[in-house]
Order: sequence, then C-alpha cells, then structure tokens
Amino acid sequence: MISFTKEAIKNLEHLNKINLINSASGYKSANLIGTKSKSGISNLAIFSSITHLGSEPAIYGFVLRPTTVRRNTHDNIKETGIFTLNPVFEEKIYDAHHTSAKYAEEISEFDKTTFKEEYKENWNAPFVKNAPLQIAMKFLEEIEIKANNTILILATVEHIYVKKEMLSSDYFINLSKGNIATINGLDGYSIPKETIRFPYQRPKD
Amino acid sequence: MISFTKEAIKNLEHLNKINLINSASGYKSANLIGTKSKSGISNLAIFSSITHLGSEPAIYGFVLRPTTVRRNTHDNIKETGIFTLNPVFEEKIYDAHHTSAKYAEEISEFDKTTFKEEYKENWNAPFVKNAPLQIAMKFLEEIEIKANNTILILATVEHIYVKKEMLSSDYFINLSKGNIATINGLDGYSIPKETIRFPYQRPKD
Repeated sequence: MISFTKEAIKNLEHLNKINLINSASGYKSANLIGTKSKSGISNLAIFSSITHLGSEPAIYGFVLRPTTVRRNTHDNIKETGIFTLNPVFEEKIYDAHHTSAKYAEEISEFDKTTFKEEYKENWNAPFVKNAPLQIAMKFLEEIEIKANNTILILATVEHIYVKKEMLSSDYFINLSKGNIATINGLDGYSIPKETIRFPYQRPKD
Repeated sequence: MISFTKEAIKNLEHLNKINLINSASGYKSANLIGTKSKSGISNLAIFSSITHLGSEPAIYGFVLRPTTVRRNTHDNIKETGIFTLNPVFEEKIYDAHHTSAKYAEEISEFDKTTFKEEYKENWNAPFVKNAPLQIAMKFLEEIEIKANNTILILATVEHIYVKKEMLSSDYFINLSKGNIATINGLDGYSIPKETIRFPYQRPKD
C-alpha cells in the first residue's frame, strides 16, 4: 500500500491533490443539470455530486462552489426555481464531459455539443433529449457549508421519466440497462455493465 | 418512457417508492465505515452517501438518519471523533451488504462477516483488512437538514492508504483496478471494469 499522511496530502501539487481526494471517496453519480435563465438562455452542466437525501419527501442534494465554477447553473436555479437532471449515458460521455468547459453565460452548451433540448409538460427547463432517464427538479433550499465555502442545494423530485426497459417490477431503476455512466475522480468515466441485487438483510443468529 | 408525476410517486407503495427514488439519482459510492465504541466494541456499516465536498481542505460528507438506522456508527463517531472508510470490493460484496442488518450495539459486524479488523499507526478505529483503499477520517461537524430530518456529517481526510496498482502517476486512483463496487439504489451492486479519462475541457471557438 502507498500511504499519504495528512501532511503529505497537503503538500501535494494542486492537480495531484484534487485527483487523489476526488477519486478516493468512491464512484460518483454522473448527471447533467439543465437550466434556463430568465432571459431564455439554456444551460447544461455536468455534476458528480448529486446525492439521494431522502425518499419521503423525495429530496436530492448537490454541492456548489458558487464563487468559482458553474455559476450559470446556480444563477438560473435561483432565478427560476427549477432544473432538470439527466444522467450521462454511454453514447455521449465525451459531450457530457465537455459541458465542464467554462462558457460565457450568453452561450448555451446545447449549441456547443450534440445534446438537444427537450421540453415537456410546461416545465420551463430543458431536458436532454433521448436521455434514458429525465427528472424534473424544484429548488427547495440551500445550506451553507462554512467549513469549505460550499453550498449544498436541496431540491425535490417533481417528475420522473424513465425508459421502460430500465424499470423493474418493484420500481428499481437498473442503471446498467440504460448504459448510464459513473464518475471516478474529476475526469474518469465508467459504464457498469451488470448489476447484482441482494435481499434485505436481517441479523444472523 | 414511463412517467411518474409527483403525485404518482407519493402514492407508490413504500418499498416501490424507495426503490425508485434511491435509484433515479444515479450510481453511488459504496463504503464501509469502521468505528469503535468507547467501551471497545467495533462496528462496520455500509453507506452509499459518502460524497466529496472539497479537496482543500480535504472534506467528505455523508448522510445519516439518526433516529432510525445506523445509530451505532453515529454514536461511535460522536464518542471517539474518528472513523475509517473502506470501499466495498468485488470479493466481499455480499458481506458488505450484510452489514446493513440491524445488529444490537454489543455485536460487532466483524464477528458476523468474513471481514477482519486491521489497526494502524495508533488510529483507534478499525480498517477493513485487505481493502484496496483505506482512509482514516476525523469528524469535523454535523449539519442538520431540517427538510427531512437527516444529518450531514462532515469529516476530514487524515490518512490514505491505497494499493500501488490503483494509483496513476498524477495521483488519480483508478477504482476499477481495485474492483471497487458502486451502488445502484438500495441493494444493487456493480463492479465497473474499465475507466476512460478525458482531458480538461476549454470552450470551443
């Protein structure tokens, strides 16, 4: 095993440090957040921090560093109160990663990638057309994490659209049947090909 | 596409609802948290909500529902201020899932699974022996999420041990080279076998 003390981590060159710390916590979700500004400019940005926070009510959270990157997403969510979640899927991994480029706010990532906007049922934030799973989300609140100047955004699940072949009879969504990606670190992408499910566990005698 | 309105989700049978909402947010990290109580009883519990919150300082977070499950983990962390993170790896997926069974606090999951405790460098919380990645963590603070009565635990990365073959020259940890698992929903496990990395993205002209 290679060992990194806290001191050694602190002294790593910046890029090495963010690679190490971003990859050591395990696989992350890979989602594209679709938003639209009040003035009508759509935005699409990749996030790896979307986390399930509760099912009743259905709440997801994600982390933002508002002073540095992804400001358009944050601004649009604050302006309109809504956004969409669309998982990164195999055919479009590269385009999904490209949404991490810092475009000016008047430029839509939909114009700089092969992603197409889709609008449904009067939800005024763009879904990613042909994504195997699409979720309409509503902003709930934001919580300041003072320890490192980040913001945890909480949002409620408003509408889920999912490809029929991914949905099991007990409403489990099998992500591998949609060739959905997971993120490793800052820039690694994997497409899990199989999923095994285990039963609910009770203590052994 | 199959469509679920907010109302339809609300009216789902409980197990169907938690399957749907837990799986729709995407792949999750799969980590075993190792702790020890003040009275010396070790504990091992699986968590799928460990999330990278920042690299400088290195902070991870995870979500707890303190009034219902995983109380031992929370109690031990509050008592001792420390814990370990150990990713779920392929050979032991079933045992890892079994740590979700609700054992009484006087029983150690290390005695009910094939996992063995490992102690290093005076860190008084158990690591999982032979895990390809082991992280010593120190409790930082907890943030109450009132919207659904959960707690976000923040903790700092104190020491990382990683298998040499997983570590790239730029300190990216390639999780697939350690056969590390990712979690889909409540009970689905995948072992991604390949990882592709993309370069840092800049705006196209």
